[in-house]
Amino acid sequence: MDKNQLMQRAIQLAVKNVGSGRGGPFAALVVRDGEVIAAGTNAVTSGNDPTAHAEIIAIRNACSKLGRFELSGCEIYSTSEPCPMCLGAIHWARPSHVYFAALTEDVAQAGFNDKSIREQMTLPYERQRIPIERLPHGDALLPFKAWQGKTDKILY
Amino acid sequence: MDKNQLMQRAIQLAVKNVGSGRGGPFAALVVRDGEVIAAGTNAVTSGNDPTAHAEIIAIRNACSKLGRFELSGCEIYSTSEPCPMCLGAIHWARPSHVYFAALTEDVAQAGFNDKSIREQMTLPYERQRIPIERLPHGDALLPFKAWQGKTDKILY
Repeated sequence: MDKNQLMQRAIQLAVKNVGSGRGGPFAALVVRDGEVIAAGTNAVTSGNDPTAHAEIIAIRNACSKLGRFELSGCEIYSTSEPCPMCLGAIHWARPSHVYFAALTEDVAQAGFNDKSIREQMTLPYERQRIPIERLPHGDALLPFKAWQGKTDKILY
Repeated sequence: MDKNQLMQRAIQLAVKNVGSGRGGPFAALVVRDGEVIAAGTNAVTSGNDPTAHAEIIAIRNACSKLGRFELSGCEIYSTSEPCPMCLGAIHWARPSHVYFAALTEDVAQAGFNDKSIREQMTLPYERQRIPIERLPHGDALLPFKAWQGKTDKILY
């Protein structure tokens, strides 16, 4: 399948996801060497999981299938521009390329908070909608000391 | 438990997580009315899941326990400043407050990419490390049309 056909397939999955009542109108594919190796569709409401966005699920499914925690050599096709959570997940997963179809503006017009959250995250903590603050603790660095002292650690 | 004790408990979980070899030196708690209702520790490497950060797992566990897809009325205690993926997840989950102990600078010094990813995400797509681009498609808005036409949809 070419890029246009892959995006078409993702869009069909997103439409089907709405019909099934599983969640929002979003889907994503993970593709390697032209082959779809995993898919994800939004399951926030049916799964009681605010992190169950299409890209997150597709990344998790692909990594599970490949038996590794990154997606080098893979492409992601998402029906919409990734929200900040999913964009962060993409940077952790390190696919070789990401394609998306609809824009954040389209997503906002459909009633989702992606745009608002993106704006929130550019603000300093004290101006974000959710109060986020540092609680200094004398032991805050203990986990990192344990990590540095661990000789058989797996880096990611 | 007071705030300091709750953070202490999260830090202990993070130290334990390193010892167990489950993943990175991070833990998070979800607290409601002073009671810990869920916890999460990093499981990226053991779970082959780049999204398995402490906050993401804690949010998923708490929502699963509460049977809903948001965390209003709950607080999150994280051993470290949330990475952009986790900050995005926090905005979707809508807890009433978030506390963190170690700073992104500390996390970076321990060898993790949070700071670098945060910087990447402030850049326009064409300058980010991972190529992210729009692939326009004539059917891009079909999922939203299906969504708008669905009368029994659950908003989130």
